[in-house]
Amino acid sequence: GCTRKLGMKICGFLQKNNSMDERSRMVKNLLSCDNSGGEARFRRTEIDFSNMFARDLLPAKNGEEQTMQFLLEVVEILTNYIRKTFDRSTKVLDFHHPHQLLEGMEGFNLELSDQPESLEQILVDCRDTLKYGVRTGHPRFFNQLSTGLDIVGLAGEWLTSTANTNMFTYEIAPVFVLMEQLTLKKMREIVGWPDGEGDGIFSPGGAISNMYSVMIARYKFFPEVKTKGMAAAPRLILFTSEHSHYSIKKASAALGFGTENLILLKTDERFAFISLFSVPPLQGFVPLFVNATAGTTVYGAFDPINEIADICEKYNIWLHVDGAWGGGLLMSRKHRHKLSGVERANSVTWNPHKMMGVPLQCSAILVRERGLLQGCNSMCAGYLFQPDKQYDVTYDTGDKAIQCGRHVDIFKFWLMWKAKGTVGFEQHIDKCLDLSAYLYNKIKNREGYEMVFQGEPQHTNVCFWYIPPSLRGLPDGAERRERLHKVAPKIKAMMMESGTTMVGYQPQGEKVNFFRMVISNPAATRSDIDFLIDEIERLGNDL
Amino acid sequence: GCTRKLGMKICGFLQKNNSMDERSRMVKNLLSCDNSGGEARFRRTEIDFSNMFARDLLPAKNGEEQTMQFLLEVVEILTNYIRKTFDRSTKVLDFHHPHQLLEGMEGFNLELSDQPESLEQILVDCRDTLKYGVRTGHPRFFNQLSTGLDIVGLAGEWLTSTANTNMFTYEIAPVFVLMEQLTLKKMREIVGWPDGEGDGIFSPGGAISNMYSVMIARYKFFPEVKTKGMAAAPRLILFTSEHSHYSIKKASAALGFGTENLILLKTDERFAFISLFSVPPLQGFVPLFVNATAGTTVYGAFDPINEIADICEKYNIWLHVDGAWGGGLLMSRKHRHKLSGVERANSVTWNPHKMMGVPLQCSAILVRERGLLQGCNSMCAGYLFQPDKQYDVTYDTGDKAIQCGRHVDIFKFWLMWKAKGTVGFEQHIDKCLDLSAYLYNKIKNREGYEMVFQGEPQHTNVCFWYIPPSLRGLPDGAERRERLHKVAPKIKAMMMESGTTMVGYQPQGEKVNFFRMVISNPAATRSDIDFLIDEIERLGNDL
Repeated sequence: GCTRKLGMKICGFLQKNNSMDERSRMVKNLLSCDNSGGEARFRRTEIDFSNMFARDLLPAKNGEEQTMQFLLEVVEILTNYIRKTFDRSTKVLDFHHPHQLLEGMEGFNLELSDQPESLEQILVDCRDTLKYGVRTGHPRFFNQLSTGLDIVGLAGEWLTSTANTNMFTYEIAPVFVLMEQLTLKKMREIVGWPDGEGDGIFSPGGAISNMYSVMIARYKFFPEVKTKGMAAAPRLILFTSEHSHYSIKKASAALGFGTENLILLKTDERFAFISLFSVPPLQGFVPLFVNATAGTTVYGAFDPINEIADICEKYNIWLHVDGAWGGGLLMSRKHRHKLSGVERANSVTWNPHKMMGVPLQCSAILVRERGLLQGCNSMCAGYLFQPDKQYDVTYDTGDKAIQCGRHVDIFKFWLMWKAKGTVGFEQHIDKCLDLSAYLYNKIKNREGYEMVFQGEPQHTNVCFWYIPPSLRGLPDGAERRERLHKVAPKIKAMMMESGTTMVGYQPQGEKVNFFRMVISNPAATRSDIDFLIDEIERLGNDL
Repeated sequence: GCTRKLGMKICGFLQKNNSMDERSRMVKNLLSCDNSGGEARFRRTEIDFSNMFARDLLPAKNGEEQTMQFLLEVVEILTNYIRKTFDRSTKVLDFHHPHQLLEGMEGFNLELSDQPESLEQILVDCRDTLKYGVRTGHPRFFNQLSTGLDIVGLAGEWLTSTANTNMFTYEIAPVFVLMEQLTLKKMREIVGWPDGEGDGIFSPGGAISNMYSVMIARYKFFPEVKTKGMAAAPRLILFTSEHSHYSIKKASAALGFGTENLILLKTDERFAFISLFSVPPLQGFVPLFVNATAGTTVYGAFDPINEIADICEKYNIWLHVDGAWGGGLLMSRKHRHKLSGVERANSVTWNPHKMMGVPLQCSAILVRERGLLQGCNSMCAGYLFQPDKQYDVTYDTGDKAIQCGRHVDIFKFWLMWKAKGTVGFEQHIDKCLDLSAYLYNKIKNREGYEMVFQGEPQHTNVCFWYIPPSLRGLPDGAERRERLHKVAPKIKAMMMESGTTMVGYQPQGEKVNFFRMVISNPAATRSDIDFLIDEIERLGNDL
């Protein structure tokens, strides 16, 4: 609290040429500063935001000083939040129901009004927004595939929003466009395509990246669909495993294939795709596209890419690898074998915002053949992509995208890569997988736990039921299943209300609700895993 | 520079209990601080980032102090950048060709490596990334529809990235999900739908918002396409004007309609849609969707929504209004009449990141009928949208989206609305339109200028040719056209190389390259408009 305040106070003081008396008081204050509890003491007296408004900030005349003070005040709120996020004595969340937040919490009112509010209120709003949110960077937040708060990545995002530009042309994003190009090339090298050749783009999330893959596959084999629509193609069939991400289904609906023309192949829990040949013979249909998942969302399973690639090559089918979750393992010499054959794919989705800890959003679609992205999506808008610019316009990448404006998602990732090196990502990934092995070994034979699938997890997903003592004697059957189904939701609800930790649960197929533990947070340690288990037992013991 | 440094220096000093000698030296330094030139003096001596690495930051043990120092150092880079952005003596950009940046500029090397770089280098990279970028917030940046750097919006983005969460569930984004809901309702009220009823979502840009509108229209009339594909529907036809945004074309290609089934209706420069009835009779085709543009990209023209709505109602066609650019005018009592009839639309695209100055990205798709978004896109993924959560799960909005993870685009907008009030947005918009009228009046009869279309602009788009003296005597014809076509690109290239200002140009139909001036930057004043005109004349006089 006090560091910045003091500096501001001092310089404000010096600039104002105050009296010697005030000067000595200041120095005295300063020398007694102990970097704690200083917040309340200084702010109100020195900088009064209650009479300041957005209109007083830049570009307002003489708005520079207020602007800097306001931004530094915001930064103080953010750095306090960051400090607490990594502090295990802080709660992961302070849960409230929607109606509670909508009714308004002591001075935090979500309603928008016609008249402006003071910057004092804006700062309160910032503080409260964080207060009632969820600390996704907390070492005990295990709820999603994207967790953690990387400091360099965060700095990258702050810079990105300050630069406030758009990826469509080199003209207005020269550095970012080149960073994207170099980073995509590096990713393609890691996938294993010769010299990193190929194409790609960062997209707003893995679902859109997967959608791109289906669009490009269609364009490759039936380019006339672009102009004539699906009527110009035969009935096209897509394949994916029943455990693959639902975005493949969303894409098949959106792009006009229809979800019934997406065939969900049977899998087991550890290896998807028992066989493509379990599909009934296809009459009058053309198989277009196969999605192999590298790291399924719930089980973390890896489809056997080489086996699938053999079939795709034989029948000339587009092979996409959805490595949104598992792609990060390519950075690890120890674990990348789980994606063996990925270099045979025609396209790959890889989300650095998941396993690599890059802040949201950061997802790439990589394409082996150059030119397809452009061919599929280009519409040559004259107002953006003028051919007579003074620079090499092949760097204007906007016409490859289904978006027009595109957020700068590359900088934070590029900066993290610089700061950690490839080896830093590798260490992070190896550590997370070690931690999940630790969890697996801890609970596999522990009383009160049943694993959803046998064997060590391939990714960091550890799926399990916690069986409260009251259910341990019950024979398997409808009653036990019904009661067990309610256990995870109850524990999760209590967890959220006590705010101590968060982990996801879901049913899957015939399986009743179970916990899915995933580890991607660099802040997590064995003690946090131990804590989670203790907490599940504390909350679930009497169910 | 000095404020924060000093504060840090002082507290560092106090924490370390240094000798009294050092203490007096410190106080002396402090009292001589004049808030300029302090940067180089303090940083290197006090905080040595050259031996610090990303791994030393949180969550590293004892990493808190380094983390705070690093982040504050980044903030200093950013606040310096912001200060300069609003300073007219700073260049808008420091242009380099792609090959120059790729070769590396004095210590700025874009290549990624296996080993980590020091935080010192990371800070240099941050500084250089900004140095070689484009200041889109500069008062003389007129190049895109999105310009400016709103300080409150920026603070909102910094907070958003610090919170680093995802919009799909209330569970992990309780506050943001509610803010989105309330803000969308407010926007629908402003559109004019009774009680703000309806639906909507923030999407990654106007192109995706427009794509949503086509998807929802198809779902409304042919819901079976979701499961059975386009084969289940008759041949569907979409309509838009020839001046509408190219994203409608992208959507028709991506979604399986085919661009040939998108009919581009003739327009004039000021009012699009001369008539739907100029379309040849449609045999065997079903007209599904009409896009009316509120603010075309190049001319800023508004389609007559009421006339189009009459036809859509008569033939039961979905009416979408693409107000990506013009939607902001709804906030102005003076200008909202240009969107008369918008309340009759079935869906509306409205990008606050354009005319309302919200940082990128912030785009909304609003839908009049509730339930269609969900119906069209939902796939009920069990691992995210568990029905047995402890809170009201209708707040889990993720299944409405074609994305899975979705970036938090709402907070900066909500915060700006709080800080400016509705009236603040109105003032901003009125001011920008006044400025464009000033420009129009300044050049409409000025020697050396020809307007691309007659009459006062409806939006802030002012389209014109600058005719260098050497072309002024030439009769209209092939030679003059050919030479005039080269004028705007040449001036633009020189502008970028001198870095003084930026404005877009393009050809349109038969019209050779002309400048398209747009004003959305709150920092721009009449003096900046004057500067632009002077600059065009300075650079173009001898062509």
